[in-house]
Amino acid sequence: MEKLTFVKVGGKIVEEEVTLRILLHDFAAIPGYKVLVHGGGRSATRLANRLGVESKMVDGRRITDEETLRIITMVYGGWVNKQIVAGLQASGVNALGLTGADMNLIRSDKRPVGEIDYGWVGDVKEVNAGLLVSFIRRDMVPVLAPVTHDKQGHLLNTNADTIAGKVAGALAGYFDVTLIYCFEKKGVLLDANNDNSVIARLDRSTFGQYVTQGIIQEGMIPKLDNAFEALEAGVKQVIITQASDIRRKTGTHIVL
Amino acid sequence: MEKLTFVKVGGKIVEEEVTLRILLHDFAAIPGYKVLVHGGGRSATRLANRLGVESKMVDGRRITDEETLRIITMVYGGWVNKQIVAGLQASGVNALGLTGADMNLIRSDKRPVGEIDYGWVGDVKEVNAGLLVSFIRRDMVPVLAPVTHDKQGHLLNTNADTIAGKVAGALAGYFDVTLIYCFEKKGVLLDANNDNSVIARLDRSTFGQYVTQGIIQEGMIPKLDNAFEALEAGVKQVIITQASDIRRKTGTHIVL
Repeated sequence: MEKLTFVKVGGKIVEEEVTLRILLHDFAAIPGYKVLVHGGGRSATRLANRLGVESKMVDGRRITDEETLRIITMVYGGWVNKQIVAGLQASGVNALGLTGADMNLIRSDKRPVGEIDYGWVGDVKEVNAGLLVSFIRRDMVPVLAPVTHDKQGHLLNTNADTIAGKVAGALAGYFDVTLIYCFEKKGVLLDANNDNSVIARLDRSTFGQYVTQGIIQEGMIPKLDNAFEALEAGVKQVIITQASDIRRKTGTHIVL
Repeated sequence: MEKLTFVKVGGKIVEEEVTLRILLHDFAAIPGYKVLVHGGGRSATRLANRLGVESKMVDGRRITDEETLRIITMVYGGWVNKQIVAGLQASGVNALGLTGADMNLIRSDKRPVGEIDYGWVGDVKEVNAGLLVSFIRRDMVPVLAPVTHDKQGHLLNTNADTIAGKVAGALAGYFDVTLIYCFEKKGVLLDANNDNSVIARLDRSTFGQYVTQGIIQEGMIPKLDNAFEALEAGVKQVIITQASDIRRKTGTHIVL
């Protein structure tokens, strides 16, 4: 099968013009088929602050009321997504910005209200990869924003790591997929205070131990859950690394 | 050639939830291939006000500084576009939201600074219809936001009426295109204060006379210029009508 590189780029990298420009330059240089998924993080919080809308987070997840959904769709689906698309087009990459609503790419269910009401937050239920595959085969490069829909007219705020894992998994039936989660650290760290304590190779049972021991914590846990799920769905390689290393593929290699 | 209906929907209709819902319902019911182009108008001004950003207009055109460009991209390219896409998907229409940056659909030049510096405003130079045509033939329905790019990494605020005329013109080589500009009035009026004074049929020379006589004024002049240009580019039929009449095709029929 033909190779496809799937890059998820997170918060801080996307927010700063210089780091984003370098990332797009490196991404543009990756040969062959590719897909980019971006978050947006604090830029939504900044706009919310300016508008006097309170940002409520629970365990790093944003409670998404009507106005917060509007902000997220504007920032992630509008400004961040289209800035990336224009930047890639300038580098000769035929980028195409998409949310999960576009061509019904990702259908989610609104998260059920339990102890916490997350509001307009979606859990991915279905990825319609067929049309995406035909776009990719025509050398288009999808740029996915972390917004999906319920197919009933509602947009839903959806975790970008989850979107990366689910869509990469859906593409694994058509391509030999390498999924790279990149962010500001060099990889998954054994010691959060030591940037050079990168775990080179992490399998599921070791991951479980590290979680029990408190070595792997917080946002890294769901990210790794998504990584393992992608491998189970047929993704060939999953790597967690820093943004400047997406071409060298150093960092942490996740294995089943 | 197969038929394609191209609808441009303007400011007030898009801004109000009820009128938008009715428009999307009517648009969804149009048989065959179709494209929707939307503006956004006052919703960008409202957000600018809340953010303390001054909206400067010259002859109904928005002066677009860096911050205004960001607001326009967020509102038109983000919230309005994705709301429409999600709404159409709920009606079973396979909508795909696009700006001119996506797959390099519309390349514009930044308007040269003359007596007025419009800032990040684009004049359309090139429409790449090929990929759009193949999407449409696969029953996707493009939803275009009034933002384009210069292919050098900059997004540009671009008039939605112009986008409608240029893209409809570019599609005229592939489809039998009907272009409908819809808004809150019943058509082009002989008397701005009489909603029933609709001109049923308007040709270019009569248009010239009406402009000279001051009967047709302001924003209607560039809209009609776009309409005539679309006809010259091969569009079969151009109609200016109210949003509730897009299926009946009443209103003003523009002819060369």
